[in-house]
Amino acid sequence: MNEGTTYRLLTLAWGSMRRLARAAGVAAALLTALAAAPVEARAAVDGESQFVLNTFAFLIWGALVMWMAAGFTMLEAGSVRTKNASMICLKNIGLYSIAGLTFYLIGYNLMYTGVEAGGWLGQVRLLFGTTADEVGLLGGQEGAAEAVLGTGAAQMSMWFFQMVFVATTASIVSGTLAERVKLWSFFVFVAVMTAFIYPVIGAWTWGGGWLAEMGFMDFAGSTIVHSTGGWAALAGALVVGPRKGKFRTDGSVKATPPSNVPGVTLGVFILWLGWFGFNGGSQLALGGAVDAVAVSNIFANTNLAAAAGVLTAILVSRPILGRVDLMAGLNGTIAGLVSITAAPDITEHYWAVVIGAVGGVLCVAGMKFLEQMKVDDVVGAVPAHLICGVWGTLAVCIAAGGDLVVQLVGILAIAAYAFGLSMLFWLGLKHTMGARVSAGVEAHGQDVGELGIEAYPEFVLYPEED
Amino acid sequence: MNEGTTYRLLTLAWGSMRRLARAAGVAAALLTALAAAPVEARAAVDGESQFVLNTFAFLIWGALVMWMAAGFTMLEAGSVRTKNASMICLKNIGLYSIAGLTFYLIGYNLMYTGVEAGGWLGQVRLLFGTTADEVGLLGGQEGAAEAVLGTGAAQMSMWFFQMVFVATTASIVSGTLAERVKLWSFFVFVAVMTAFIYPVIGAWTWGGGWLAEMGFMDFAGSTIVHSTGGWAALAGALVVGPRKGKFRTDGSVKATPPSNVPGVTLGVFILWLGWFGFNGGSQLALGGAVDAVAVSNIFANTNLAAAAGVLTAILVSRPILGRVDLMAGLNGTIAGLVSITAAPDITEHYWAVVIGAVGGVLCVAGMKFLEQMKVDDVVGAVPAHLICGVWGTLAVCIAAGGDLVVQLVGILAIAAYAFGLSMLFWLGLKHTMGARVSAGVEAHGQDVGELGIEAYPEFVLYPEED
Amino acid sequence: MNEGTTYRLLTLAWGSMRRLARAAGVAAALLTALAAAPVEARAAVDGESQFVLNTFAFLIWGALVMWMAAGFTMLEAGSVRTKNASMICLKNIGLYSIAGLTFYLIGYNLMYTGVEAGGWLGQVRLLFGTTADEVGLLGGQEGAAEAVLGTGAAQMSMWFFQMVFVATTASIVSGTLAERVKLWSFFVFVAVMTAFIYPVIGAWTWGGGWLAEMGFMDFAGSTIVHSTGGWAALAGALVVGPRKGKFRTDGSVKATPPSNVPGVTLGVFILWLGWFGFNGGSQLALGGAVDAVAVSNIFANTNLAAAAGVLTAILVSRPILGRVDLMAGLNGTIAGLVSITAAPDITEHYWAVVIGAVGGVLCVAGMKFLEQMKVDDVVGAVPAHLICGVWGTLAVCIAAGGDLVVQLVGILAIAAYAFGLSMLFWLGLKHTMGARVSAGVEAHGQDVGELGIEAYPEFVLYPEED
Repeated sequence: MNEGTTYRLLTLAWGSMRRLARAAGVAAALLTALAAAPVEARAAVDGESQFVLNTFAFLIWGALVMWMAAGFTMLEAGSVRTKNASMICLKNIGLYSIAGLTFYLIGYNLMYTGVEAGGWLGQVRLLFGTTADEVGLLGGQEGAAEAVLGTGAAQMSMWFFQMVFVATTASIVSGTLAERVKLWSFFVFVAVMTAFIYPVIGAWTWGGGWLAEMGFMDFAGSTIVHSTGGWAALAGALVVGPRKGKFRTDGSVKATPPSNVPGVTLGVFILWLGWFGFNGGSQLALGGAVDAVAVSNIFANTNLAAAAGVLTAILVSRPILGRVDLMAGLNGTIAGLVSITAAPDITEHYWAVVIGAVGGVLCVAGMKFLEQMKVDDVVGAVPAHLICGVWGTLAVCIAAGGDLVVQLVGILAIAAYAFGLSMLFWLGLKHTMGARVSAGVEAHGQDVGELGIEAYPEFVLYPEED
Repeated sequence: MNEGTTYRLLTLAWGSMRRLARAAGVAAALLTALAAAPVEARAAVDGESQFVLNTFAFLIWGALVMWMAAGFTMLEAGSVRTKNASMICLKNIGLYSIAGLTFYLIGYNLMYTGVEAGGWLGQVRLLFGTTADEVGLLGGQEGAAEAVLGTGAAQMSMWFFQMVFVATTASIVSGTLAERVKLWSFFVFVAVMTAFIYPVIGAWTWGGGWLAEMGFMDFAGSTIVHSTGGWAALAGALVVGPRKGKFRTDGSVKATPPSNVPGVTLGVFILWLGWFGFNGGSQLALGGAVDAVAVSNIFANTNLAAAAGVLTAILVSRPILGRVDLMAGLNGTIAGLVSITAAPDITEHYWAVVIGAVGGVLCVAGMKFLEQMKVDDVVGAVPAHLICGVWGTLAVCIAAGGDLVVQLVGILAIAAYAFGLSMLFWLGLKHTMGARVSAGVEAHGQDVGELGIEAYPEFVLYPEED
Repeated sequence: MNEGTTYRLLTLAWGSMRRLARAAGVAAALLTALAAAPVEARAAVDGESQFVLNTFAFLIWGALVMWMAAGFTMLEAGSVRTKNASMICLKNIGLYSIAGLTFYLIGYNLMYTGVEAGGWLGQVRLLFGTTADEVGLLGGQEGAAEAVLGTGAAQMSMWFFQMVFVATTASIVSGTLAERVKLWSFFVFVAVMTAFIYPVIGAWTWGGGWLAEMGFMDFAGSTIVHSTGGWAALAGALVVGPRKGKFRTDGSVKATPPSNVPGVTLGVFILWLGWFGFNGGSQLALGGAVDAVAVSNIFANTNLAAAAGVLTAILVSRPILGRVDLMAGLNGTIAGLVSITAAPDITEHYWAVVIGAVGGVLCVAGMKFLEQMKVDDVVGAVPAHLICGVWGTLAVCIAAGGDLVVQLVGILAIAAYAFGLSMLFWLGLKHTMGARVSAGVEAHGQDVGELGIEAYPEFVLYPEED
């Protein structure tokens, strides 16, 4: 280790300390100033305006995250072979719909009233009455209105923002298992995942549970959302198995190029756009200048990490995959985005570039590794969401003062829970409804075999090669 | 455990306690009374902030509704056969452009100054001068500024929001009549519809006319926008007639599957996203906590109804159409959305699920029914927009306290007016410019026959079957 | 005529008089009060709320402009022949990524601290520390918080908004040079353009440089963004040359129809949507009623000009190009949008219609003219962005009080700088890395020849005609 390196490490260490001190100072300042008499500047935004701005932000950022459902659909429909493109459309609009209902009926309540049995039943009742309640209270006595304003934002705006997150988790699974998982088994898994698997993890963290109490840092869900989705997808891939003929007996791998590259690209751009809502909205507020600054930094870091992820993925695709690879570059976008998701708010901008850049490299390496392990992940979701999700959660220790032990505990606990439970459910599905389509359906494609509608019926297609 | 960790844990604990206390407070507050006069808390947002927030909301929600024009385009371009896909692109960008100009010159003025002849001419003059007017007044004397602020939002933000609504109405017609209506006749109809037909209905309702005075409830336009578009489309379908060969002499129906299923799916996701603006913006304000709560409930109800519509449409497609049908599911999204549009603000969430679910069923049944009636509706717009529009407007009586007689009067009056006048204009077009392309153009497709540009010129296509 | 009707008519008449009187007083009010100090009504929004609203607006409008990157990608991927569609996807996601990094590292700092050597290095250091800085200051002493609020909006929200502008400039180049420019040469040019060429022009104008001091009016960048992009594209087109076989020796022009018309249409709708952010955000504020009114007028004018551009382009395409041309109509959208971009805030609405309409005509004529000059511009970006950019900047003199001489100086200075420097760099690239792909790669397409991935590998395509 030469002198320059030592100097750099010392500088970094000093920088980290300084940032920690500053973070502590900021936290202390916020606690004192906010709880007691806030300084004039912050007090300037009145309580109702804060409530409106927070709510407005939840709705807009939530709409952007909802739009990610379209992004996943386009990405996946373009990535699969044409013979399964209609089915992937159905799976994606179906999963978003299922998530919207299960998270309303069960998931949200479970997530935000803890995982104690019975607790969420009371909350369900609350949800059922919420429309009129808040309006009524705001129009009622002063104390009642204050209580509503004190919640920070309208109840259903928070619900909406959380609901689109759970849909994202389910979308990740859809891509990995494309082209061979049964429609109805997939829907059942989505229902279980959005009603129970994800909400429990959410309760541990954002719901204020034990991981939150330990100090686990995962701002917008590198682990909570993306690794969770990745683990569920990996479990499914192991249970369902690779597409027929993907891994040949001679050790070679059958190329399954995306059927519609502009469609995939559109999907990636949609995800990039939606991610501003995903990360920006996770500030959970936009009612004051501190929040406005934080969300702005989040936007910048999100974009910087994604851009870096694209470029490193393109650059390393040549040595790792043997050519400049567009699909690697596109997946590098998601890699960069997932990587910065754990701490886009307090990471310095140059660190965001580094974190995204490393994410791009890890993603391409992970795509190669999975292929070598003979795990068939149609869209590369496991490298992008799981591996980069873990990386991003660990990077918090380098760039944003996270505690390595706590971060590891969080990563491992969620991994064990999400992967284990998903494995259990996928195995259960396999031995009941069946998780995989028949060989005939797979050969002809799910569009014709299972659904009876071709994606591009007028277009002449090449017969599939082996 | 070092001091920093202790501090962090204490902070977290304190935060949890505070959250718990707040949650307890809210729960208690929820048990207290509703209604009565607005309290101080509401007055907290000052007049100018309200003006800014209302305007901001109109612009953002309006932009989302504008985006629906792209959604209709993708849905329709993917639904028609490739030979008519370019033409549908031209019709859709053309109709949005025409609507934007006619509604500026005539429609908006007609809608908001009543339907008395002459009244809207004065308003036209106002529009011509509005840019400088409001800025000048705000920079002028105090009284003048107050007058502007008193309007609630910037004049042109309201215009923009209303303009994208009228474009939506015209988009509905485009889909039903695809593949055989003449380009220029369609454009003439769009001009008439956006300048006169829709604005008069708007004047009766949102413009404060006789239906508004009767208490007709149609929050964001299940009837005013969607049924109106549906009636105009139905009139056109009856005058123009079905596509050649669609209904065979032996009573069977020729399958005309969508040429690009991922394109249709993208279109549906765009519409779903845009609908948050459509319904959310119809609150017409976001300047206070009551509005913020209302818009949040609207977002939640809009999403719940759409999700329910998707799922029921998929489920009933098997018994009604004979198979699990993706296109039915996609149309079920729109069905759910249209159904909740009449009262997304005050409908309880579980009712939103029910209303959307029923909409999904009605839509699939309506698709079957229209086919049996030998009405050729290329994209199923009449079931989704007209039938579900009527259903949604009636559902207000069940879920949101609407008066059945008043709702029926509104539905029937608008039906008679929209259908009658549309019929008249379509017949007039038929007997002057001609409403339908020649048999040769229809056989070769409008792209080659009328426009001279193929949608996918490099792709080899199957010859059309009879 | 009953009493109610009389009363309504009187009310309408009185309203009209009041409106006329108000209109009469406006011109004077504009000349006096705008320059003076803001009145009470404007002061009503407190400093922190203004900061939040301005920041919020930058982020949302910036996200819409970011979305334009997807629009350019879809437009271009649909416009090129299928054999180059994957490459255009890579170029576009690559350019957006490069722009995001170079503008962070160099461009932004150069643009906003003037072009003095060394000045921007200090700014770079500031950027590196900005995340924690603003948050810390806001939580610190009163004076520090005031200083942050005094900047009007969060630093990185402004950075984000400016960054997506520079990406737009680079996107323009991509379309013109499609199908033959080398990937890595293009990326190098993008890096130079986004780090140096555009930021210097930005420094002259929005950075407060000599053109700003002269009074050059270009609100959202008809010249600064769009003509700059157009000049760089034109320089590239001249250096790289036309696609092989485009201009035949017998003087005829080979038709190269767009391979995916619905894709192009989607791209245009995305651009139209994004432009609301592009023009609306250029107000640089949304913290008060005057800004809200201005942004609303901008939205209306942007839509009116685009709509007019579409319709005139369609109408004149028949006499100019020999048929009603969808591609002309789609490009007419962009023409109308670029044309109004120089002054969408203070142009009267009827002038917006005229400016957009003229833009549509100029664009179609320009497409014809470029073809006659044997300049191969694949997507018609030079007519839409350069020619209409010049037109829009001149139209400011007619519709918004611009000084003709100053406007001409700005147009010519930027033309000379952008075209000259671009020419230099393209020539440099040509003689080093090479700017153009080999004849073999061009014949087989860049997808297979340079990238090894087809855009639509399963679809059977017609062999290319000569």
